[in-house]
Amino acid sequence: MAAKDGLGAPISDNMTAEDIALNMKEISVAEFFEKNRHLLGYENSSKAMLTIVKEGVDNSLDACEDAGILPELKVTVKQLGIDRFRIIMEDNGPGVVEAKMALAFGKMLFGSKFHRLKQSRGKQGLGIRGAILYAQLTTGKPAKIRTSTGDAKVHEFELLIDTVRNEPKISAHTTAPNKERWHGVSIELEIEGVYVERAQSIHEYLKRTAIANPYAHIIYNGPNGVLKYERTTNTMPKHPKEIKPHPYGIELGILIRMMATTRSQNVRSFLMGEFSRVGGSSADQILALAKLEAGRKPASIANDEAERLHKSMQMVKLIAPPTDCISPMTETLIENGLKKELEADFYVAITRPPSVYRGNPFQVEVGLAYGGKLNPQGAAELYRFANKVPLLYHQSSCAITKAVEEVDWKRYGLQQSSGGMPVGPLVVLVHFASVWVPFTSEGKEAIAEYPEIIKDIKLAIQDAGRNLASFVRSQRKSREGQMRRQLFERYIPVVAESLEKLTGKDHAPIEMKLEAMVKAGKLIIVEPAEETKTETKKAEPAEDEGADE
Amino acid sequence: MAAKDGLGAPISDNMTAEDIALNMKEISVAEFFEKNRHLLGYENSSKAMLTIVKEGVDNSLDACEDAGILPELKVTVKQLGIDRFRIIMEDNGPGVVEAKMALAFGKMLFGSKFHRLKQSRGKQGLGIRGAILYAQLTTGKPAKIRTSTGDAKVHEFELLIDTVRNEPKISAHTTAPNKERWHGVSIELEIEGVYVERAQSIHEYLKRTAIANPYAHIIYNGPNGVLKYERTTNTMPKHPKEIKPHPYGIELGILIRMMATTRSQNVRSFLMGEFSRVGGSSADQILALAKLEAGRKPASIANDEAERLHKSMQMVKLIAPPTDCISPMTETLIENGLKKELEADFYVAITRPPSVYRGNPFQVEVGLAYGGKLNPQGAAELYRFANKVPLLYHQSSCAITKAVEEVDWKRYGLQQSSGGMPVGPLVVLVHFASVWVPFTSEGKEAIAEYPEIIKDIKLAIQDAGRNLASFVRSQRKSREGQMRRQLFERYIPVVAESLEKLTGKDHAPIEMKLEAMVKAGKLIIVEPAEETKTETKKAEPAEDEGADE
Repeated sequence: MAAKDGLGAPISDNMTAEDIALNMKEISVAEFFEKNRHLLGYENSSKAMLTIVKEGVDNSLDACEDAGILPELKVTVKQLGIDRFRIIMEDNGPGVVEAKMALAFGKMLFGSKFHRLKQSRGKQGLGIRGAILYAQLTTGKPAKIRTSTGDAKVHEFELLIDTVRNEPKISAHTTAPNKERWHGVSIELEIEGVYVERAQSIHEYLKRTAIANPYAHIIYNGPNGVLKYERTTNTMPKHPKEIKPHPYGIELGILIRMMATTRSQNVRSFLMGEFSRVGGSSADQILALAKLEAGRKPASIANDEAERLHKSMQMVKLIAPPTDCISPMTETLIENGLKKELEADFYVAITRPPSVYRGNPFQVEVGLAYGGKLNPQGAAELYRFANKVPLLYHQSSCAITKAVEEVDWKRYGLQQSSGGMPVGPLVVLVHFASVWVPFTSEGKEAIAEYPEIIKDIKLAIQDAGRNLASFVRSQRKSREGQMRRQLFERYIPVVAESLEKLTGKDHAPIEMKLEAMVKAGKLIIVEPAEETKTETKKAEPAEDEGADE
Repeated sequence: MAAKDGLGAPISDNMTAEDIALNMKEISVAEFFEKNRHLLGYENSSKAMLTIVKEGVDNSLDACEDAGILPELKVTVKQLGIDRFRIIMEDNGPGVVEAKMALAFGKMLFGSKFHRLKQSRGKQGLGIRGAILYAQLTTGKPAKIRTSTGDAKVHEFELLIDTVRNEPKISAHTTAPNKERWHGVSIELEIEGVYVERAQSIHEYLKRTAIANPYAHIIYNGPNGVLKYERTTNTMPKHPKEIKPHPYGIELGILIRMMATTRSQNVRSFLMGEFSRVGGSSADQILALAKLEAGRKPASIANDEAERLHKSMQMVKLIAPPTDCISPMTETLIENGLKKELEADFYVAITRPPSVYRGNPFQVEVGLAYGGKLNPQGAAELYRFANKVPLLYHQSSCAITKAVEEVDWKRYGLQQSSGGMPVGPLVVLVHFASVWVPFTSEGKEAIAEYPEIIKDIKLAIQDAGRNLASFVRSQRKSREGQMRRQLFERYIPVVAESLEKLTGKDHAPIEMKLEAMVKAGKLIIVEPAEETKTETKKAEPAEDEGADE
């Protein structure tokens, strides 16, 4: 056994099982993220600034939408020193009640959105606490928070996170009268940062947020002046509804856990009560397939029986999950957003029917903008969104990128090197909306590569791609026709002279007539035979989508 | 206020701050990972199998090294059905004591390695619990665990994780006499999986593990037969020592927390006792710069004083952190590993001096293999290791990849498109060793892009690159010399005839003499002047490393 210091930990040399056991202890989740701040998006000082604004804006938009309030957001970034900044984020949301104020900002893995199946930007009860933790790590300063629910009092308090215990530490708390009945939240943080206005910046983030959330009014008061993102509509999106899980794709382990804890008296009412789209006859079908009696108590179902039940749930034909738990951007909005943002020749947007992964409904939307003033050189630009939140980092390890790269863009008349992004004057917008977005990290920067998700994104892109292909083809045809006409025009004098020789008539009037016909488009210039064939070959097999699904 | 179901949760419509508050609750870390299993590396069934083996092997190697035992690992993968597998992982490590058995396998964020500053593969107390959780989610089956510390009893138990409470649930526990005094751990899991032997496979993982851990003996009993990775050395690596944090790069927030909880009586003894490389005179220098009295109680230091102290800690010249907390692969081992694995013409390995990020010492090693039978077409292959663990996923979002791409490989005679991997017959091995590896996700697949880390990897590559450049240059010179000789040989008859005309002597003997001289290499063929100039231009400025550092 090794030498030990006062704490019972061997300093070096070989450890026995007992030595190792002595050192085992629980790790608080706040300590975990204090050491792993990069997991929350804080691996460098410029990204950290964007991440903070992102967490604040996401929270504010969620709160406003939950409360049915048209969002008014104000983001202020003030430079205090070379690498010192103050960030203030204020919204007009419902505010936070006094009893939960400390926990809502000072305890990690605590929140109202984790357990519900309903689309929202935040979920995990980490986001804004990560921002507060980053401020505390880099400047030691507490967060200053102001909030009111619109009652008589505005609360102002200063808060740090006790990472060892994962508990809030309030260092000051005052109240002021709320004459204007203001409601909302304002968070002020002092941080170490590096300010950029290049690609992955607060600018770009807010610009794309405005595209996806046109009912939000956002004022950005940055180090280089004020920018306003005006709302283009006063209509709030339809409230996404909270739903129950759908039987398709739910995991066996989750089913077993649900049966162990359900309040349903029997397995039939359990199926009907705790899943969406399971009525009496579907429940009977499932139970018949699983050879289980309807009256069995859920907690009495053994492991192998649960496995049969689970299989049967996947086999019975059920209606797709309800769509009202998801709030898509909608095709009109995507097209409008792209048109507002980009000068292109062609726009198309596709909203797919909802689908399911791991029992979670999701919906994919794709928008394409092509031609016009878009850069004809280089790879297409990709705008990724998850639950209306723009994703700016980790593009290369995102399911969206993978899907875009796996599509055969040559079919749609674009160039593409194998397994890469398409090349040409193209912007691809993809929106993934779900009651649960499987982000690859807590920083919510990329979507995990679940096969069901990649498949559905590809189908949406293929759908939009077929629209694009007709445009690209007709554009190419008209360009080629134009070229053929120009070529023919050059030969008009030769043709006219030949006709003079054949007919004995003067070439000059023949030449004029031919020119007039070409100009009026009355001269039909037939395409060469082999080119027509190539076109037919390139056309996509009709069973494309069906074969995949 | 909205309609509510029995649980107090509004089902839809506008929510008030009170509604939201009613739904707020704590989220168990096990629930969090149950919903986010992709964060642990379980987003699809083929990757899941590799992740499970990886977690098992990492744990086993850590345990054996901590106990100073030469590792004997056995991994068995048995196919039970189309997508059903049994995975058994057994080691000869120190085992787990009875009192901690349940927690060590059944509680997330619990372990012995999180709080110590010492290089190890696992750290966070998540890995093997994630594998158990995945088995439970996909097949509902408990993990079967056998362990003994080498005493009289072998414990066998079955375990599930109660995700809502993040607590182990033991469903069976028996003991058997331990006649052979076996010690170690064996874990058996039944899972849903897809088995592949392509690139990102158990095969590839174990092969690369064997390169980095040549003292381990690993037997892989897979669905297609048995593979053995024999040990090539019986010498265990030097025990990495547990250390205290280094003042450089430690965060202000951590410093404040340390001062609030330290048992040191005054700030001088605090600095000397809780940091590495701070002796009495360094402590005095720091305190003088910070204008703090040595006798101050650490807990009495105010925020602005802590900030001064923090700045001073970065300014005083200190010895680099001790290297004995890090266990590098070593240059010899890297070269041997590459030679064993790859048939190349040239090998080089570089171990950098240790450096610090966020107060954590780290060390970078780079190995290059070039030429020979390596594929001359396409991008170089990259072998990434972190604390001797091969990283197979998320290559594109890893600090190692970023560093490799940021190096200007044209300087070293290789082709490279802007910002891409170098092209040519090249394998690049990079090992990042640290007391704390900042992985981009809990699945430990890529290293976060901390600027200090990228910089150091680039310096190591540049160092190795300079060695490579001399070889590439000399290879090219000898190839060009060869070509010039061949060209001259063709002109020998012409030269000989001209000489016959000039001198009147017979051309035949002149020709023979010239040929003999070329073959013997006695004829010095001078390089054209402009090529020499180009070479000089290409040579790297000597201040390269200095300027960066």
